[in-house]
Amino acid sequence: MVQADPSGRSRRDCGCIWSRINLDFVRIFLLWFVIVFYTLFGAAVFSALERPSELEAHCKWNRQLAEFVQDHQVPLEDLRELLGHYEGAIAAGIQMEPRTPRWDFSGAFYFVATVVSTIGFGMAAPATLNGKIFLIFYGLIGCATTLLFYNLFLERMITLITFLTRRCRKQKQRTKLSKKHIVSHLNTQPENGDGLEEDWKPSVYYVTLILATVTLLVNCGASGLYSTMEDWSYPESMYFCFVAFSTMGFGDMVSGQKAHYEARWVYQIANSLMIILGVSCTYSLFSVTAIIIKQMLNWVLSKLFSLHCCRSQGCCSVAGLKVKEPADQQIQNTSNHPGICHVVKASHPCKCASTAVETVCQSLDTANSCPTFEHEIRDSEKLPKCDAEKEVFSAVGKNCHRHHHLQEDMRTVKLSNQQQQDININAKPIL
Amino acid sequence: MVQADPSGRSRRDCGCIWSRINLDFVRIFLLWFVIVFYTLFGAAVFSALERPSELEAHCKWNRQLAEFVQDHQVPLEDLRELLGHYEGAIAAGIQMEPRTPRWDFSGAFYFVATVVSTIGFGMAAPATLNGKIFLIFYGLIGCATTLLFYNLFLERMITLITFLTRRCRKQKQRTKLSKKHIVSHLNTQPENGDGLEEDWKPSVYYVTLILATVTLLVNCGASGLYSTMEDWSYPESMYFCFVAFSTMGFGDMVSGQKAHYEARWVYQIANSLMIILGVSCTYSLFSVTAIIIKQMLNWVLSKLFSLHCCRSQGCCSVAGLKVKEPADQQIQNTSNHPGICHVVKASHPCKCASTAVETVCQSLDTANSCPTFEHEIRDSEKLPKCDAEKEVFSAVGKNCHRHHHLQEDMRTVKLSNQQQQDININAKPIL
Repeated sequence: MVQADPSGRSRRDCGCIWSRINLDFVRIFLLWFVIVFYTLFGAAVFSALERPSELEAHCKWNRQLAEFVQDHQVPLEDLRELLGHYEGAIAAGIQMEPRTPRWDFSGAFYFVATVVSTIGFGMAAPATLNGKIFLIFYGLIGCATTLLFYNLFLERMITLITFLTRRCRKQKQRTKLSKKHIVSHLNTQPENGDGLEEDWKPSVYYVTLILATVTLLVNCGASGLYSTMEDWSYPESMYFCFVAFSTMGFGDMVSGQKAHYEARWVYQIANSLMIILGVSCTYSLFSVTAIIIKQMLNWVLSKLFSLHCCRSQGCCSVAGLKVKEPADQQIQNTSNHPGICHVVKASHPCKCASTAVETVCQSLDTANSCPTFEHEIRDSEKLPKCDAEKEVFSAVGKNCHRHHHLQEDMRTVKLSNQQQQDININAKPIL
Repeated sequence: MVQADPSGRSRRDCGCIWSRINLDFVRIFLLWFVIVFYTLFGAAVFSALERPSELEAHCKWNRQLAEFVQDHQVPLEDLRELLGHYEGAIAAGIQMEPRTPRWDFSGAFYFVATVVSTIGFGMAAPATLNGKIFLIFYGLIGCATTLLFYNLFLERMITLITFLTRRCRKQKQRTKLSKKHIVSHLNTQPENGDGLEEDWKPSVYYVTLILATVTLLVNCGASGLYSTMEDWSYPESMYFCFVAFSTMGFGDMVSGQKAHYEARWVYQIANSLMIILGVSCTYSLFSVTAIIIKQMLNWVLSKLFSLHCCRSQGCCSVAGLKVKEPADQQIQNTSNHPGICHVVKASHPCKCASTAVETVCQSLDTANSCPTFEHEIRDSEKLPKCDAEKEVFSAVGKNCHRHHHLQEDMRTVKLSNQQQQDININAKPIL
């Protein structure tokens, strides 16, 4: 029985706890645990990699300090006091190797750029209270504006990738046709071929791959620039690029800080452009990768759901998830909710009731089997938002005439959820 | 004449350059100029605020160094060499005031948390080449996962705000009704009242205001914690919270770095929770603020467009913008493209052909005037995506039978654009 359940719970009551849980919350908690375990794993690896180096650095410094004290007969306490002063001086931009001023106009411009982009190298930071207070208000608007820029850039990138991949595909199809058919046949065929391919969209994997390639190329180009200008090794430059472009900005390595460069202005402009391009590309890559991660979470949830609940009771269609269901049940569902392609057990063919998932169904017909995980994701990616939303609306409207304002909540949650799925790529139905 | 124009150009050819320009590109370039000017302004202010302090710090350090050399008769060159070594030692986590180890497990965990959240304080950074290479691959997955977490958090926040504000509104309406009507009338009325309010959604300003309040409260709470535990002043703690929560993470101030704290573990857990909550709230605030900024950009573009092009020639309906148009033209358009509310000159009433913008139209009827900027934004925010997409599809389908694959591009661009408008809030139709 399908039920109106508040707060985005699954619609079909199959008598198990999974059907009563708000899956949006389950998803965020699952993601939370993934992050915690990933962090623990990272901490273990970094601790193993860096701890010996830290201990060695400590030993080395203690030895250098002791040697200096012994050689020059300086009281250790006085020297420690001087070093304490030096820590403060470093925070104000003083280093033994001459550096550019932190707070002349060009220095302040670089600082501000790291603020609005949220890189925050920390090579400069406001020391005065007025500067600190101003930073809060300034950063609030600046960071939001730059976030919008990143999103617009991502949207432009996806539009471009869609346009280019579609053209390539058409070109390939034309070439294929020209090999198969005679010239007279070709004169009428290609236009129809174009028409058939209007709805084709690159998969999220394809977009991710292209974005990863573009980001890698930008990283490599920028690394070449920095290794030449900053006297860093190429791997060190790659590390700097990743840290800067991902907006971590540790500040252990910062470009453009030397007092003297050849062709200073040219380098500064190239540096700025590289950082803008790099950050925008990396943000785009993170955003599309986030979609894949979300699809993986959905897959895990659907597996858990089908494992614990659906084997014998035939419940299905949990918000945003695709789960197994018996074929008879499925046919009934697809007729009720057009546009939803249900994944069934290997013995049953996949049924689709809408042209919206035509390409996926075609690929399934061709393969003569049910979709793999990759197919599931691609199917989900290609499902137009409007149809998916309608499905949610109709399901709620048809089955839940009681609990009127709770229905609305459910609808809200489902909508948000569906939108969230789209948001990370900014143009999901394209994919 | 409405034309099929590639790459998301405006559909109506009114003979001026604005109708031939890709408005998505105009928007991103306008935003780019805004960011550049905002950065220049920030650079000027920060330079004025911080430059005197920097010069003073330099003078102070030079004096301290000279005094030390004079007092202890140490060769300046040897001392400078020692200070150079000390810079390296600081990078490895050595400071005169005792600090926690950088790369024991808890230190590495804190470091990794600043990596995946992209805060990147820089109090620790991998010194070994292996650590640097591992960071690139580790950060790529980690940052994408955390970006997904921020987005899911934002979606949950908006769902919660929508739910709560809707309940408050219903409660208010019930109270209002109970004052106006007799008890017997009340027994039948409220349910209908509820039904009428099902479509009500809080405006983007309202959501921004609530998120700003929540973020401020989290900042204040965290600042109280840090000012107690870290011996920072309250404004300094507020500055640290903003820098950390906005993921800038300069590293000039880092929490949890002292060797000794009272109730160390409790503080570390509270510190972690505060940073997670703070970053998530601040990201949400930036995201909704970005929507307001985008609406402002659209408003500027619509003003530019109407100023340069539409006064005499009656062109309208540029992708994602609302522009002025003569009333007769407008009526024709609204019948063709249901769901779009055109803003007309002050002498003409606003026409809407869809219930989708009912609330906005109602407010306009009440005000008996055309929408203000605020109304425009609210209207745009409330326009359901499906209707807006349909409008684009139908416009393209009806008017552009030539240039088949260019139509598709246009459709793609319009869709992306519409989605982009939604993305930043992850649940735009809710608003």
